[in-house]
Amino acid sequence: KAAPVLDHGFVRVIDYMGNDAAIVQAARVSYGAGTKKVNDDSGLIRYLMRHWHSTPFEMCELKLHVKLPIFVARQWIRHRTANVNEYSARYSIMDREFYIPEPQHLAAQSTVNNQGRGAVLEGAEAARVLEILKSDAARTYDHYEEMLSQDGQQGLARELARMNLPANIYTQWYWKVDLHNLFHFLRLRADPHAQYEIRVYAEAIARMVADWVPVAFGAFEDYRMGGITLSGKAI
Amino acid sequence: KAAPVLDHGFVRVIDYMGNDAAIVQAARVSYGAGTKKVNDDSGLIRYLMRHWHSTPFEMCELKLHVKLPIFVARQWIRHRTANVNEYSARYSIMDREFYIPEPQHLAAQSTVNNQGRGAVLEGAEAARVLEILKSDAARTYDHYEEMLSQDGQQGLARELARMNLPANIYTQWYWKVDLHNLFHFLRLRADPHAQYEIRVYAEAIARMVADWVPVAFGAFEDYRMGGITLSGKAI
Amino acid sequence: KAAPVLDHGFVRVIDYMGNDAAIVQAARVSYGAGTKKVNDDSGLIRYLMRHWHSTPFEMCELKLHVKLPIFVARQWIRHRTANVNEYSARYSIMDREFYIPEPQHLAAQSTVNNQGRGAVLEGAEAARVLEILKSDAARTYDHYEEMLSQDGQQGLARELARMNLPANIYTQWYWKVDLHNLFHFLRLRADPHAQYEIRVYAEAIARMVADWVPVAFGAFEDYRMGGITLSGKAI
Amino acid sequence: KAAPVLDHGFVRVIDYMGNDAAIVQAARVSYGAGTKKVNDDSGLIRYLMRHWHSTPFEMCELKLHVKLPIFVARQWIRHRTANVNEYSARYSIMDREFYIPEPQHLAAQSTVNNQGRGAVLEGAEAARVLEILKSDAARTYDHYEEMLSQDGQQGLARELARMNLPANIYTQWYWKVDLHNLFHFLRLRADPHAQYEIRVYAEAIARMVADWVPVAFGAFEDYRMGGITLSGKAI
Ligand SMILES: Cc1cc2nc3c(=O)[nH]c(=O)nc-3n(C[C@H](O)[C@H](O)[C@H](O)COP(=O)(O)OP(=O)(O)OC[C@H]3O[C@@H](n4cnc5c(N)ncnc54)[C@H](O)[C@@H]3O)c2cc1C
Ligand SMILES: Cc1cc2nc3c(=O)[nH]c(=O)nc-3n(C[C@H](O)[C@H](O)[C@H](O)COP(=O)(O)OP(=O)(O)OC[C@H]3O[C@@H](n4cnc5c(N)ncnc54)[C@H](O)[C@@H]3O)c2cc1C
Ligand SMILES: Cc1cc2nc3c(=O)[nH]c(=O)nc-3n(C[C@H](O)[C@H](O)[C@H](O)COP(=O)(O)OP(=O)(O)OC[C@H]3O[C@@H](n4cnc5c(N)ncnc54)[C@H](O)[C@@H]3O)c2cc1C
Ligand SMILES: Cc1cc2nc3c(=O)[nH]c(=O)nc-3n(C[C@H](O)[C@H](O)[C@H](O)COP(=O)(O)OP(=O)(O)OC[C@H]3O[C@@H](n4cnc5c(N)ncnc54)[C@H](O)[C@@H]3O)c2cc1C
Repeated sequence: KAAPVLDHGFVRVIDYMGNDAAIVQAARVSYGAGTKKVNDDSGLIRYLMRHWHSTPFEMCELKLHVKLPIFVARQWIRHRTANVNEYSARYSIMDREFYIPEPQHLAAQSTVNNQGRGAVLEGAEAARVLEILKSDAARTYDHYEEMLSQDGQQGLARELARMNLPANIYTQWYWKVDLHNLFHFLRLRADPHAQYEIRVYAEAIARMVADWVPVAFGAFEDYRMGGITLSGKAI
Repeated sequence: KAAPVLDHGFVRVIDYMGNDAAIVQAARVSYGAGTKKVNDDSGLIRYLMRHWHSTPFEMCELKLHVKLPIFVARQWIRHRTANVNEYSARYSIMDREFYIPEPQHLAAQSTVNNQGRGAVLEGAEAARVLEILKSDAARTYDHYEEMLSQDGQQGLARELARMNLPANIYTQWYWKVDLHNLFHFLRLRADPHAQYEIRVYAEAIARMVADWVPVAFGAFEDYRMGGITLSGKAI
Repeated sequence: KAAPVLDHGFVRVIDYMGNDAAIVQAARVSYGAGTKKVNDDSGLIRYLMRHWHSTPFEMCELKLHVKLPIFVARQWIRHRTANVNEYSARYSIMDREFYIPEPQHLAAQSTVNNQGRGAVLEGAEAARVLEILKSDAARTYDHYEEMLSQDGQQGLARELARMNLPANIYTQWYWKVDLHNLFHFLRLRADPHAQYEIRVYAEAIARMVADWVPVAFGAFEDYRMGGITLSGKAI
Repeated sequence: KAAPVLDHGFVRVIDYMGNDAAIVQAARVSYGAGTKKVNDDSGLIRYLMRHWHSTPFEMCELKLHVKLPIFVARQWIRHRTANVNEYSARYSIMDREFYIPEPQHLAAQSTVNNQGRGAVLEGAEAARVLEILKSDAARTYDHYEEMLSQDGQQGLARELARMNLPANIYTQWYWKVDLHNLFHFLRLRADPHAQYEIRVYAEAIARMVADWVPVAFGAFEDYRMGGITLSGKAI
């Protein structure tokens, strides 16, 4: 049921509200008799998408359970139009699970794009990077546990000990969002400019959305993902 | 199924997501092992409410179909944390339905509260008020129809003709909101300071919420509606 | 100082925060050394607009005082990402000021667009429409006053009496919004699909924004207002 | 000008809009003649605060530059009603600056509160914790630099290398928020239940707000911070 993402992460649908029909239903409240022209549902949904009539898409809602590395969570949480409950590292002890990239994703800094990746690292360098990531993860986690509790010691507060953990440790949360803002998330995060590690989450969610609201997703793909914006000057 | 409100209005549940258990489920993601102390669900929900831990309540969502006078809609729409699709008076023709208060709700301006009502109007004055409201509604609506279409004329655009209609005409919308922000709405609009005509909608919704999430609603009633805030000085 | 709009309305700048330089300043915090390539400010702002990097535009804020007819206010308030304080018809008595369109704006319902206007009304029909709008405004306002206070009567509560007033009466508010969401408002409301009566407000504000943040406004005009979006299929 | 917070952090005011008078000005638009009763400004502001009339407080805006450890940033960013531009670890290289608590803040896990701290750690344990935090910070940062660039190697992309850095490394951002939501932030984060490391930021900001809008801050302190909420049953 949960779609696996990266080495230890996943995305799982917890609940949803509405579907393609719910978008149409809401639009028809607004437009009443005025929707005669666009009399099939699929045409209406595509019309709404094309003209940025976004409020009917807000009538659908999706709730996910996600497990993800903290550096991905830090990008994701910037999308403010969602509801979130995250695992608390003040209350609870973090699990010993770290994201370690597969060798083919160990890329060099891009030489053309300051915010991106270039060629894959060569064997020796890649090996050294993996060794660093693994050993630092292991050592910092050992120290985390040691700070939390050692025989004969008080044990550092969890909210303090966690500061020693690197950004590739996994956290988890419930994340709930309406379909309009989910499309906005997908447009930004399933995009080639997004970091690979969040893009794979966006792609996993996109597949779920395509199943859930196929017509709306088709319109989104066509007008938002695949579309391009030309400036007035360019025209 | 729809709860009637005022003379022609209603509130009807279209869909909902989650329930009391969904609040607990989300909170337990956050608090993990830390929730052992509050081990029953009802205690946990009351704890969350008491300490303003509001994000687990955002995990529930309610979608309503509402028919309401425009002057009520103007107060309601000020709650920005909701999703709305309203009947369009640009596309469609408004129905001939106006809110005419019952005599016992025809109150005088309050002499103590600048934003409220005082005693009920006496018979003759009340009768005169009712007669004004009814005849102006009828006349303005007749004129609305006349402007829209008369034999041998072009017919004024709907978006213009509607400006002649008074604020007690009914409109309708789909309104979707999460439970935390719904409680906030209820706190402000089921309150004695709110205008009677929106309060009856809030009260109708409150009854639906009490059925839907009885534990959360009980906590809300106890800590928000019935509660009072004392200032530091007062303590 | 206030720009007049429609027959009795206006838009007036109360305060603002930031300018073109503030957008650049915020972007440079994010991008640090990465902004070397786009080393002039104007190029950076255009780059941000082109790539939908919207958060630096949120760093500017504008506060306006607006006087506008209620049917325009009802469209405007749907933009939820703003801060509003409106004149209260529960506390205070509304002024006797109504929007009466100029003859050249008295258009017929469009025959091609269900949500728009077509040809201007001919002389006799236009005259009849104007007469209706004026006399209904006058009569409903006379009745409003009569309900509020007549010799020897208690006077109906303001919050009730106002329901007799038509949607072309003027209200006023303070409206504060960040530049990103203001651009979104302008894109939707300075657009030909928007109703003329809100479009003139959007256009008045657009002129103020062009003075305030000329570079950002230029980029907005070029990439958002003048631009077109092509679907994947169209490409 | 910047207020230092923790060992390397700070809070600095970049810009602000409005003041106590702006709150009153906005409220008087709403309440018009109705505000006669509360004729002094300070009384009006206190009245608004007491009755949760929050929209006039949204008319003031504050923009800060903040430098803070990542684990604090992760708590802070959960406040969605703000505008943020953060330093990008995809574009730029992080500085070698880590939060190392002072010994008197190295507390044990609370034995009564699952989400809090108890007694300060004793000498030997505290020393061991400090040594761990310092050496792991140094080592992970050395490895970060090594992964980014070594003689004769390509250098790992910044967006990947940063995943090795622990949560006590410093980041920075511009943060802009309206006064109502800032008060909400302060109520939650200057509270004893908040983690010490974010509380000191909230307290530094509170002092700035007290200078900026002394009357509103006084009302906030009295009715929100110092106040208590009694449940209906308790009354
Ligand atoms: C002591 C403490 C412990 C905490 N522990 C945890 C924890 O264990 N796990 C965890 O996940 N979080 C935890 N939090 C974070 C908490 O759940 C909130 O996310 C955070 O305090 C921000 O509060 P807020 O949502 O009220 O603020 P804001 O996001 O600024 O929102 C203010 C108000 O605006 C409205 N609003 C804004 N955005 C939206 C939106 N997208 N949808 C609907 N309404 C919106 C709501 O009415 C909201 O109350 C903790 C916070 C504190 C203070
Ligand atoms: C030509 C035209 C015709 C229209 N016809 C109709 C009609 O017939 N019926 C009708 O009901 N409306 C109609 N509208 C109004 C329209 O549906 C929007 O409500 C309005 O344009 C505001 O747009 P917005 O929601 O993008 O703006 P804002 O409310 O300012 O929101 C901007 C963005 O912020 C986010 N956001 C803000 N608040 C929330 C929230 N509470 N939940 C989730 N995300 C949020 C969303 O990403 C949103 O896109 C029409 C508008 C136009 C321009
Ligand atoms: C008795 C009464 C009298 C009133 N009188 C007047 C009056 O005279 N004039 C008048 O103008 N209004 C009046 N109002 C309306 C009032 O000012 C609010 O607009 C309304 O109650 C909605 O409340 P809200 O903003 O808390 O709700 P929501 O808009 O649902 O917001 C909930 C919370 O989310 C956050 N939030 C949501 N959107 C934004 C945003 N765009 N920017 C920042 N934060 C956001 C805030 O933290 C907010 O508190 C009155 C309301 C009541 C109940
Ligand atoms: C490739 C890429 C690179 C990035 N690089 C950086 C970087 O270097 N630094 C950095 O700081 N960020 C960076 N970001 C994050 C980016 O700035 C946004 O924070 C993030 O993409 C969320 O987008 P959003 O604000 O549109 O979404 P949401 O927060 O979901 O908002 C959707 C819409 O709702 C409205 N809205 C919601 N909340 C508010 C609010 N509180 N006030 C006003 N309007 C609101 C706005 O109209 C907004 O457009 C990057 C993002 C991407 C995709």
